Amino acid sequence: MRRDKEKIKIIPLGGLNEIGKNLTAFEYKNEIIVIDCGLKFPDDEMLGIDVVIPDISYLLKNQDKVKGIFLTHGHEDHIGALPYILKQLNVPVYGTKLTLGIVETKLREHGLLSSTKLRCVRPKDVVKLENLSVEFIRISHSIADSVAIAIHTPIGIILHTGDFKIDFTPIDGCVADLTRFAELGKKGVIAMLADSTNVERKGYTMSESTVGEAFENIFSQAKGRIIVATFASNVHRIQQIIMAAEKFERKVAVSGRSMENIVAVATELGYLNVKDGILIGIEDINRYPDDKIVIITTGSQGEPMSALSRMAASEHKKVNIEKGDMVIISATPIPGNEKFVFKVINQLFKKGAEVIYESLADVHVSGHACQEELKLMHTLVKPKFFMPVHGEYRHLKQHAELAIKLGLPEENVVIANNGEVIEVSRDSIRKNGTIIAGHVFVDGLGVGDVGNIVLRDRRHLSQDGILTVVVTIEKETGKVVAGPDIISRGFVYVRESEDLIDEAKEKVRNVLKECEAKHIKEWATIKSSVKDVLRMFLYEKTKRNPMILPIIVEV
Amino acid sequence: MRRDKEKIKIIPLGGLNEIGKNLTAFEYKNEIIVIDCGLKFPDDEMLGIDVVIPDISYLLKNQDKVKGIFLTHGHEDHIGALPYILKQLNVPVYGTKLTLGIVETKLREHGLLSSTKLRCVRPKDVVKLENLSVEFIRISHSIADSVAIAIHTPIGIILHTGDFKIDFTPIDGCVADLTRFAELGKKGVIAMLADSTNVERKGYTMSESTVGEAFENIFSQAKGRIIVATFASNVHRIQQIIMAAEKFERKVAVSGRSMENIVAVATELGYLNVKDGILIGIEDINRYPDDKIVIITTGSQGEPMSALSRMAASEHKKVNIEKGDMVIISATPIPGNEKFVFKVINQLFKKGAEVIYESLADVHVSGHACQEELKLMHTLVKPKFFMPVHGEYRHLKQHAELAIKLGLPEENVVIANNGEVIEVSRDSIRKNGTIIAGHVFVDGLGVGDVGNIVLRDRRHLSQDGILTVVVTIEKETGKVVAGPDIISRGFVYVRESEDLIDEAKEKVRNVLKECEAKHIKEWATIKSSVKDVLRMFLYEKTKRNPMILPIIVEV
Repeated sequence: MRRDKEKIKIIPLGGLNEIGKNLTAFEYKNEIIVIDCGLKFPDDEMLGIDVVIPDISYLLKNQDKVKGIFLTHGHEDHIGALPYILKQLNVPVYGTKLTLGIVETKLREHGLLSSTKLRCVRPKDVVKLENLSVEFIRISHSIADSVAIAIHTPIGIILHTGDFKIDFTPIDGCVADLTRFAELGKKGVIAMLADSTNVERKGYTMSESTVGEAFENIFSQAKGRIIVATFASNVHRIQQIIMAAEKFERKVAVSGRSMENIVAVATELGYLNVKDGILIGIEDINRYPDDKIVIITTGSQGEPMSALSRMAASEHKKVNIEKGDMVIISATPIPGNEKFVFKVINQLFKKGAEVIYESLADVHVSGHACQEELKLMHTLVKPKFFMPVHGEYRHLKQHAELAIKLGLPEENVVIANNGEVIEVSRDSIRKNGTIIAGHVFVDGLGVGDVGNIVLRDRRHLSQDGILTVVVTIEKETGKVVAGPDIISRGFVYVRESEDLIDEAKEKVRNVLKECEAKHIKEWATIKSSVKDVLRMFLYEKTKRNPMILPIIVEV
Repeated sequence: MRRDKEKIKIIPLGGLNEIGKNLTAFEYKNEIIVIDCGLKFPDDEMLGIDVVIPDISYLLKNQDKVKGIFLTHGHEDHIGALPYILKQLNVPVYGTKLTLGIVETKLREHGLLSSTKLRCVRPKDVVKLENLSVEFIRISHSIADSVAIAIHTPIGIILHTGDFKIDFTPIDGCVADLTRFAELGKKGVIAMLADSTNVERKGYTMSESTVGEAFENIFSQAKGRIIVATFASNVHRIQQIIMAAEKFERKVAVSGRSMENIVAVATELGYLNVKDGILIGIEDINRYPDDKIVIITTGSQGEPMSALSRMAASEHKKVNIEKGDMVIISATPIPGNEKFVFKVINQLFKKGAEVIYESLADVHVSGHACQEELKLMHTLVKPKFFMPVHGEYRHLKQHAELAIKLGLPEENVVIANNGEVIEVSRDSIRKNGTIIAGHVFVDGLGVGDVGNIVLRDRRHLSQDGILTVVVTIEKETGKVVAGPDIISRGFVYVRESEDLIDEAKEKVRNVLKECEAKHIKEWATIKSSVKDVLRMFLYEKTKRNPMILPIIVEV
């Protein structure tokens, strides 16, 4: 093969035209490396589904090639699918210390810890494989210990930014390694894949440290308890709450399972610095005056079972919201969660608490780069080819336009879809075929056993309920010996609709008589006649369309 | 009764602690007047429900007293319940010309036009009743012909602002009648009820005319067709689109049933000025060059059946989105609609259209007053008592705080709930008892026949589906002669779960045998045993909890 005909394949299995379930494979000869392994939370129409993970059929078919999963950071949309995917594809998992700390907790719950090869790396580390080597580069994001990943390949460097922002004053002092991005840019980056989440926003994302200033300001005025809800994974945010508490001589208690987990992991690994005697158990909060207490809690998205929601609904065992409490919601509602968040805010206000949230104060910043930061990254890295990732189509499109405005020729930019194979050579980037990619639904213990038929039925059931018609027929004669009985759920309130149900039974009786008269004995035909007649009758009477389930019992 | 003991009752039946279904009754002696009669759209958990209307039991119980429904403006959350409520309570309906024009279309569809007494009023008009008189005052909002309402009562003036903003440069030149608000304030307003929707926002809401400037700017750069989606009811917005089209010598076509209705009504009533020859039929758009066409359409909220959604999904009969089209979404997604709107935006981008929406340009302004406008209204009206309306609790609470900051004593401000009776006398405002108020669900033709049990079942069905178990038992002996048969919908994909279903049947058989052995013959007991065993078995195997419907047929 001529050197300039060599190609590397980029195969996105998740994260394009969607928010979440990020997983991208890079294939060169006999090596595949995977960046991230995320889940996504179900859309509204995915009724009853717990989480959605990528379809990794392609990786399973090529499992001998897969050398490892390389993680950029510890958010669910980048690591959440690991427990499901490692069961099918047991390969080494590389990540920084905090990322692996969070992964460990997860694998332990799934009984996968001992069987998984976890490989801890640090920024600047390089993992050498046969033809490829993988370099980790420090970047800022809303979780500590985030990295971008550079893949050194025989045809050039491919850079995946991961989720990122440029924070010049991060809480841990670890600024993104801009120097290394510049060096790589100088050396020559053949292709860049970059986070598109905030491409619609002008300017810069504010530094995480500005939230600390807002906290100090608010803490200085608080007269009672302070309760702060935020993302459990945002260790820097938690650090800033703790620092503000220390400054105002308040004790800190933690509530919510994921928050307790993270605080434990992050403290153990040295990502959270807490002075001795500051942390107290949630059961001890009443041993201190109200103005000496800060509670850090989960529930910033209004999740119905979270600690904050339970506090707001008077269902929390240790914390009862009272007049004088100040609740800070240090997060923005993720689209779709607004109603949950506002429900909690309303409940907290009703209990007499003061509630501070993003509409009212600067108690949150994003973890993603806005336009000027994206431009900085593009300008430093100067990639030959560019592929926007992490976003809906509108984000990818606008990120592509941003790159073109910065001078990249249009043909050097590719907007791809999950499952498309993107081939990069020294002088071209192009799509070449597709492989299987898609959603795998996790529902309870089932991974992939709920598909579109089941979901379609759930949607149908959710709109107008179900009506079951049971008829018993004598095998010999075909005569109806019992029924029709009608049982409905989720359709109408039965006691108030007796006439309707009686009329429906009459309709069924008539259909059955007709079938008998016509000597129709095929159950399928009888069932579909019953269904048709009932559907039309019920729609005419109610303008509703319940699922109709005719059951014929033969005795 | 001593003069200073006289009281007027304010009875909110909708619009408090919620967005929508605004309806407030004002009662004095033998007179009740009703302000607005709105619907609200169902929350996510109200599965299958079309719309939600207020429970008007109280008005029906006192129907002799009800003198009329007085409308502030023509939005669904202020007039949408009329067709349902007029069927039960046939009273005169008062409103301005455009408001009644919209109401008429609605009543015609429901066959109620001839039986309803519609009374057209103009700003400054006063409707005199026995003890009360009702005055209409011009105000600005995102629909033309909006009014506030002052009720002149023997104990003083009560002012209801309706939905409002202060727009100094409105499109129709009809500025809010600030002079009259000042006069009433000077005369002495005993109580004010005011719109709280935007109380969380600082500053002023921009004038509607600023959107016109944005349109002109965008139109001047467009090279192909321009498609603008907005709220059908926003006649001023439509007027501005038409003016921009005229300026750039483009023809205007209209798509979407509600948009066609409004443009017809508004043109007929003189609220929309269109030069001759500008409007063309949607079927004629291909007879003009692309750069001579503007299409005004519904679908700015991403509603799945709307014209814009159909265009985006290639299902619109007349308009096929192509590269070169520019689509402007002149609206903000109402909370909960974001995902629908973004879905449409993504589809439009994929088809090659340029899409302009609020994240990218100033193509929308709110119709509600921000903090400085609210302060202006409070300062002009100087009410003795204040009751915030139209909002969730967080809005009401913050509006109450705003009033207190402006100098109102805390005890003069009441945050109420739907169904609470607020008594206002010359020197006090207080809650005195509650009456029935709540949600009435409209589902298809049914008004109120879907209640909490049906909704609970729909939610259950939506999450894990249903499993029907049919067993036929011989009457005489109690022996099982057929079954158990199991039919599931929305639970698991049956073909892949045959083993599970077989095992479940076995479990049922065992239960039935046990019941037989114990001579248990009560169906209820047998059914609940079957249910319990299956529930536990299925949960253990799948961690899911489908609805289980045991049916026993006796032959």
